[in-house]
Amino acid sequence: MSGWVVIAGLGPGDEALVTPEVRAALEAATDVVGYIPYVARVAPRDGLTLHASDNRVELDRAAHALDMAAEGKRVVVVSSGDPGVFAMAAAVFEALEAGPQHWRALDIRVLPGITAMLAAAAKAGAPLGHDFCVINLSDNLKPWALIEKRLRLAAEGDFAMAFYNPRSNSRPEGFARALEVLREACADARPVLFARAVSTPQEELRIVPLTEARPEMADMRTMVIVGSSLTRVIQTPRGPILYTPRSA
Amino acid sequence: MSGWVVIAGLGPGDEALVTPEVRAALEAATDVVGYIPYVARVAPRDGLTLHASDNRVELDRAAHALDMAAEGKRVVVVSSGDPGVFAMAAAVFEALEAGPQHWRALDIRVLPGITAMLAAAAKAGAPLGHDFCVINLSDNLKPWALIEKRLRLAAEGDFAMAFYNPRSNSRPEGFARALEVLREACADARPVLFARAVSTPQEELRIVPLTEARPEMADMRTMVIVGSSLTRVIQTPRGPILYTPRSA
Repeated sequence: MSGWVVIAGLGPGDEALVTPEVRAALEAATDVVGYIPYVARVAPRDGLTLHASDNRVELDRAAHALDMAAEGKRVVVVSSGDPGVFAMAAAVFEALEAGPQHWRALDIRVLPGITAMLAAAAKAGAPLGHDFCVINLSDNLKPWALIEKRLRLAAEGDFAMAFYNPRSNSRPEGFARALEVLREACADARPVLFARAVSTPQEELRIVPLTEARPEMADMRTMVIVGSSLTRVIQTPRGPILYTPRSA
Repeated sequence: MSGWVVIAGLGPGDEALVTPEVRAALEAATDVVGYIPYVARVAPRDGLTLHASDNRVELDRAAHALDMAAEGKRVVVVSSGDPGVFAMAAAVFEALEAGPQHWRALDIRVLPGITAMLAAAAKAGAPLGHDFCVINLSDNLKPWALIEKRLRLAAEGDFAMAFYNPRSNSRPEGFARALEVLREACADARPVLFARAVSTPQEELRIVPLTEARPEMADMRTMVIVGSSLTRVIQTPRGPILYTPRSA
């Protein structure tokens, strides 16, 4: 039996957002590897070994998956959301490029998933309805100056913006600084969405003007979407709807 | 029976990429509205009326959906990909905002889907593995000068870029100009992905250096992804893998 590696996106949390393609891969797998809370979303069964590991060991986890596939195992590497957006797919390819030549002959596939920004945008309306930028605010792997440069350019281009990892426990000051940069660069009260734990029982949505956005409105489970200058809020009896017109 | 409107994403084409949430909404619907080829993806059944309409009548279609929901129908507005990314969700909210007040009391939900860029990126590897911009290259609803400005800013920020609607039959010269702007702004041979009809039997993927990208490599069904300066190609016996490292 020849092995493979599938890097699969589990979506933001709700099982009804897991694609049938990903479901089928999990059913065919012999091994699942991933960060502890994502592996916990996979139901145990006979013939399936779950390998849960801590955060920040992405390259070790990737190498483990590739090694197991080389031994003939059918391995699913799980990410939340989409594996290609600030998740495990890039880590697996970094490991592949740096690793032994025989890994390159392996059958490796990426299966897309509903990434957090799409789920958050859908719950709020359609804030990503026109051109937008997607930025990882974590400075674990890049200098803060580059993040700040990208924020300024995104504002100059009047893009809507989606931020992943807005606020880590280890560096909470980064997001405060990001909000300052945006207030300076945008100089208006465009709406900002804080969407926490979207599609889970802990889901919380909040829309505030940029002028009133505060760092403590975001934590590690929050997706932040900043509108363009044309993004609008429609007030309805069921709550506000946030959207960016198609001409933005 | 109270009506509702669900704006649902059917994903890029493969039925295995339709979420169970969207499937359930289609099963509960009395009416489906959308652009002809998307409505054609919904299986007819007793009790379900299919309303297929031509392209470029998005606001009429949105108003029709809202009207039917106000009459008690359970309406699904279908988009390909994700309804919130250059698709029907923004059009429905534009119609809602401009329409009669009683529409605002309606139950309206957006259900996310696998948008084309995620499916294309997954097939090629992980080119959107770090910060990126998403730009609709159609100038139907915005001036070309704004598109060009955004391309230059995205290049200056060294974002990867995903382009929707790169090349319309009515304005084929736009994409040629976009490639010129990028070659000027990037001044390197970073890889470009042309991903046509991803996840369908007509799927075709092609990776070329920006210096060799030609307008005719894209048509209306093509998603274009331009790497950042750090995006890499790994050569393997199974074909090239395109990815952007997490530190980009």
